[in-house]
Amino acid sequence: MISESMKTLCANNSAIRVMFEEGNRLAALYGRENVYDYSLGNPYFPAPERVRQSIEAVLAEEEPNTIHGYMPNAGFPAVRQAVAENLNRRFGTAYSAENVIMTVGAAGGLNCVLRCLLNPGDEVLVFAPYFMEYGSYVRNFGATLKAIPSDSETFLPDPEALRAAVGPKTRALILNTPNNPTGVIYPREVLAALGKVLEEKGAEYGAPIYIISDEPYRELAYDGREVPWLPSCCKNVIVGYSWSKSLSLPGERIGYLLIPSDIEDYENVVQGCTIAGRVLGFVNAPSLIQLAVARCLDASADIAAYDANRKLLYDTVTAAGFSAVYPEGAFYLWMRAPGGDDKALCEKAKAYNLLLVPGSSFAGPGSVRLAYCVSPDMIRRSAAAFEKLAKEFHLK
Amino acid sequence: MISESMKTLCANNSAIRVMFEEGNRLAALYGRENVYDYSLGNPYFPAPERVRQSIEAVLAEEEPNTIHGYMPNAGFPAVRQAVAENLNRRFGTAYSAENVIMTVGAAGGLNCVLRCLLNPGDEVLVFAPYFMEYGSYVRNFGATLKAIPSDSETFLPDPEALRAAVGPKTRALILNTPNNPTGVIYPREVLAALGKVLEEKGAEYGAPIYIISDEPYRELAYDGREVPWLPSCCKNVIVGYSWSKSLSLPGERIGYLLIPSDIEDYENVVQGCTIAGRVLGFVNAPSLIQLAVARCLDASADIAAYDANRKLLYDTVTAAGFSAVYPEGAFYLWMRAPGGDDKALCEKAKAYNLLLVPGSSFAGPGSVRLAYCVSPDMIRRSAAAFEKLAKEFHLK
Repeated sequence: MISESMKTLCANNSAIRVMFEEGNRLAALYGRENVYDYSLGNPYFPAPERVRQSIEAVLAEEEPNTIHGYMPNAGFPAVRQAVAENLNRRFGTAYSAENVIMTVGAAGGLNCVLRCLLNPGDEVLVFAPYFMEYGSYVRNFGATLKAIPSDSETFLPDPEALRAAVGPKTRALILNTPNNPTGVIYPREVLAALGKVLEEKGAEYGAPIYIISDEPYRELAYDGREVPWLPSCCKNVIVGYSWSKSLSLPGERIGYLLIPSDIEDYENVVQGCTIAGRVLGFVNAPSLIQLAVARCLDASADIAAYDANRKLLYDTVTAAGFSAVYPEGAFYLWMRAPGGDDKALCEKAKAYNLLLVPGSSFAGPGSVRLAYCVSPDMIRRSAAAFEKLAKEFHLK
Repeated sequence: MISESMKTLCANNSAIRVMFEEGNRLAALYGRENVYDYSLGNPYFPAPERVRQSIEAVLAEEEPNTIHGYMPNAGFPAVRQAVAENLNRRFGTAYSAENVIMTVGAAGGLNCVLRCLLNPGDEVLVFAPYFMEYGSYVRNFGATLKAIPSDSETFLPDPEALRAAVGPKTRALILNTPNNPTGVIYPREVLAALGKVLEEKGAEYGAPIYIISDEPYRELAYDGREVPWLPSCCKNVIVGYSWSKSLSLPGERIGYLLIPSDIEDYENVVQGCTIAGRVLGFVNAPSLIQLAVARCLDASADIAAYDANRKLLYDTVTAAGFSAVYPEGAFYLWMRAPGGDDKALCEKAKAYNLLLVPGSSFAGPGSVRLAYCVSPDMIRRSAAAFEKLAKEFHLK
């Protein structure tokens, strides 16, 4: 008696549940410390102490009706202004509160943008591999997501492949850099080339094609790599951000949309995204945590610790004989499945209590994703398991 | 370049904005203390002190990765169990965590249920007058909301009118008691009669018609009036609750769905509502505030203060010569527009700095809504304005 589209979602959901249950089964059999779970993108390093201090300061200094009450649907004006000024300092921009909508995480923000832009039957593009929930977000509103393969070696997007994929129903391209699941950061010149294609095709079809930049991993960049500010590379960019990873607050559901004033149809897009938040039932981003993050915009989770994990895991799997993309950002390692069968690799890995996610779950068959937002000790303890798994494929 | 449906929403949104701006304009001209704003359903009496204590206890006693981390999409199992046990104590039920999904407010919960149940082209019923956002929620997913008039004197729903309205595309009926905007509480026998109609029509069409009970005002009942527990009156009820009013936490976006085990297709509905939360981008209800409300489930906002406001406002408007439904619950007074033109009454009221909402904004023309979640002093100060307004209609 549930809807047809929900029946499909329920059927697909079982794969995630099966993996979760498999983890619990293995933990019960062998002990949690002997299971090497690389499947979940859940921050391991806790929120910085300043988050707790900020929450306590809000509770001490503000009135309950301010802390917990309604504010404009787009968020507290002072919080939005603080976010804008923080971006201005970092990226040399000139945003104000009018360019910021506080959202229930990045996922909430993305749904607001899609609710705002999409007519049933419209199309959104994305480069594969990609976070598969994007497809569900787009289908919520009767539109379809169309995937374009990335380069099979570099996992960078190809502007000419984008040109070939755009059609008259294309409303937007979702970009995600640093990328989940590959850990790749898209360079500025690649982004500029993508933007140019969309400008040309938008002009050809007589309607803008927006870039929706999903940036939960923006702060997680290593070796001093630049994560280019998308609106400075391309036209018509809407940025969706979340503090889930950068402040280790995934449960709090707090993020923002940044909508530059110079995008096409700016007024309607801002109003539409704000109304979308209201009619989708978000209404506004949670209030106390809005006020708290505004007090620690320059704080961050322990990036150095993720960086150490990155090197440790890369060295561990390559020492065992596997080959992987050396991650530039986010907290994922994209490892090639010997022989190309990612699902078979994940099945075999379970025998060594290694939980990996097949690339097929990201529309990227042939590789597997390892989330290294885990304890460094777990990575060390898992080395022998990777060695044994590699032997099965005669990698050394 | 925004979607067609969003263009309509933007156009309709201007009415709310115009009222908000009118309030600011009058405040600038005459001083905020001389404007009598009855337009907003925003709690006036603050969250009880126990909420702050509970947040501080969570921060002191739990680990940051628990407080701010991901949990199952349906919410912390212990929080869900605590909610279930609280309901069991109050209503003699036998719920467990498996019947509770924590949500981003009641509006978020309603969107999850509708995303779960509705195919494009389906129909949802509601009794008018009603909170008009329901229509937007239903239309998010390509379905339509059909309003059934309530009794024009008692504003109670009529089971036979419901019978006439149900069709083969009817998936659900939204009920809201205590009611916004009328303040009426539906008695048990009326609810049972509605449930019986839906059972019969569901059997006739071969598919259950769910009751979605939107209950943000459950705790706001006066004179000892019972707010019947819907699942004990009718089959196939899904309850959506929010602590926005009962604990004065509207900005925090915290509520729950209660899905009894004996509804038709229970397993799929629970899974579907949980997945809906994920794919709509809510992911989970905000984590810290989940843990906090679980520690003060028996706390409540100052109901006695709302009760005093209720009597004060009713006496004020009736002394001036207006007639109104004596509110049984919620914090709204439903006042008849002399001559039946609610919009004209609101326009005339502005001349006396009185901000009222026309019933037409709730599909209930002929009356106006006054929200008495305001300072008692404002009600007292507004008495002269109501007297002057009444004189224009020669009510005395």
